[in-house]
Amino acid sequence: MSYPEVIYDRATGVAADTVAKHAEPQPLVFYAGWFCPYVQRNWIALEEKGVPYQYKEVNPYKKDPHFLAVNPKGLVPSAEVNGKALYESLVINEFFEDFFPDTTKLLPEDPIEKARARIWIDYISKTVVPAFRQLVLAQDPAEQSKALSNYYDALKPYVEQIAPGGPYFLGAKFSLVDATIAPWVVRDFIHTKYRGYERSAAGEAWEKYSQAIETRDSIVNTSSDKEYYKQIYAKYLQD
Amino acid sequence: MSYPEVIYDRATGVAADTVAKHAEPQPLVFYAGWFCPYVQRNWIALEEKGVPYQYKEVNPYKKDPHFLAVNPKGLVPSAEVNGKALYESLVINEFFEDFFPDTTKLLPEDPIEKARARIWIDYISKTVVPAFRQLVLAQDPAEQSKALSNYYDALKPYVEQIAPGGPYFLGAKFSLVDATIAPWVVRDFIHTKYRGYERSAAGEAWEKYSQAIETRDSIVNTSSDKEYYKQIYAKYLQD
Repeated sequence: MSYPEVIYDRATGVAADTVAKHAEPQPLVFYAGWFCPYVQRNWIALEEKGVPYQYKEVNPYKKDPHFLAVNPKGLVPSAEVNGKALYESLVINEFFEDFFPDTTKLLPEDPIEKARARIWIDYISKTVVPAFRQLVLAQDPAEQSKALSNYYDALKPYVEQIAPGGPYFLGAKFSLVDATIAPWVVRDFIHTKYRGYERSAAGEAWEKYSQAIETRDSIVNTSSDKEYYKQIYAKYLQD
Repeated sequence: MSYPEVIYDRATGVAADTVAKHAEPQPLVFYAGWFCPYVQRNWIALEEKGVPYQYKEVNPYKKDPHFLAVNPKGLVPSAEVNGKALYESLVINEFFEDFFPDTTKLLPEDPIEKARARIWIDYISKTVVPAFRQLVLAQDPAEQSKALSNYYDALKPYVEQIAPGGPYFLGAKFSLVDATIAPWVVRDFIHTKYRGYERSAAGEAWEKYSQAIETRDSIVNTSSDKEYYKQIYAKYLQD
C-alpha cells in the first residue's frame, strides 16, 4: 500500500485536541503521523499510561532534519529519549512498559499470561494486519470477495480467544493486545463501506469487542475524523 | 521451504549429550526438533540460563497426543509449564527472562538498551532469516547470485551495529540478540559449500562475530553434526 502524494498535514477532530495538549517539550518526544495505524498503537499506550510526552507530527514527504539525525531511517512511530531514537511500534510499546514502571501496566504481571498476550500481539501483526491490508488492495470483485473471506478467517482465532464476557481481550483490563489491534478496528468502517465487511459476520463477540475498543477514551482521543482516514485509502476504494 | 519426508529422529553429536542431560521430568518441558533453527534459539537461552528443563524431541510427522492436547497447533519450539503451552521462539525467549528472573539476564536492564536489543532481534527475524531462506531456495545460478547479494545486504546493517571489538552484538555480554541469529550462523556452512557464501565478504567484524558465536558453549552444546543439517536442506542443494 502506498500513501497518497498529498497527506493532510495534521490530526483532526478529537485527536487534534490531544495533540494540542502535548505540544510542550518533554524528555520523551513521540514522532508521529496522525494517519498511521502503527503510530496509533503507541499513542494509545501513552494515553493509557498518562505519561508526559511531546507529540511531533512528521510529514512523510518533508522530514525535519533533527528527526532524521536521531532516526536515520526516518520511520514513524519513533520515540526519542536522551537523544536516542527507538522505532518499531511493538518494541516502543514494550519500551513504555519498561521506561515508566510505575504507571498503569499494559501487560499481565504473570509470566505465562504475559507470554500469552505477546503471542496474540504477534498474531495480530503477522495475520490480522496483512489480511486487512490485502482487503484494502483488492480491486476486482472476485479478489475482494476472497480477501474479505480471508479477513474473517484471520479474525476467527483471535475472536475465539477474547476473554468470555470481555470487554477486552484479556478480560476487564485493557492491555497492549487491545492497543495493538485497535487502529485496525477504528479503520474498519472503510471495509464496511467499500468491501461488504460486517463486524457481526465475525461473530457477536467480535462485534461487542470492536464496540468496546472504539469507545475507549485512549482510542477516541487518538482518532482523527473519518473523512481524513478515507483520503489515505482513497485510491484503492471504489464506490 | 519444506522439510524432507524423513527426518532423522534425534539430535546427534554434542547436542545428543545435552539432550541426555535433560531427560528427567521437570516443571518446564521444552518441545523441540533438533534440526529447527527456531528451536535452537530457545535451547541456547535455556543453556545460557542454566535452568532445569526436560527436552522432548517432537517428530513433525508423528506428534505425541499429549503434546497436541496442550499445544493444538503442534508447533515447535514450545514450552509447557503448568499444563499451558507457549509457542513462537521470540515470545518464549522473553518468557524465560520473566519466568526465571534470578538467572543470567539475556536482555539489558536499561530500558533504552533493551529496546535497542529488541529492534535488532526484530531485524533478524524480518530481514536476515528471510534472506537466508531465499538463498536456500534459489535454484538457478542467476537467482542464486542475486539471493547471495541480498543476503550480504541483509547482514550489512546488522554488522554495522555489532559492538566495536565485540565479541557479541552488545559487547562483552552474550544476549538474546546473539541467541536469535546464532542458529543461522551455525548453518551457514551450507551456503559456503553450495552458494559461494563467504563470511569475510560480509566484513571482518562479521567473520569475527560468527566465530565467537559458533564457539560459544551454549551454541556448540545445542548443535548437531553437520551432515544431519545437510540432510534437512538436501533437496535444495546442488553439488
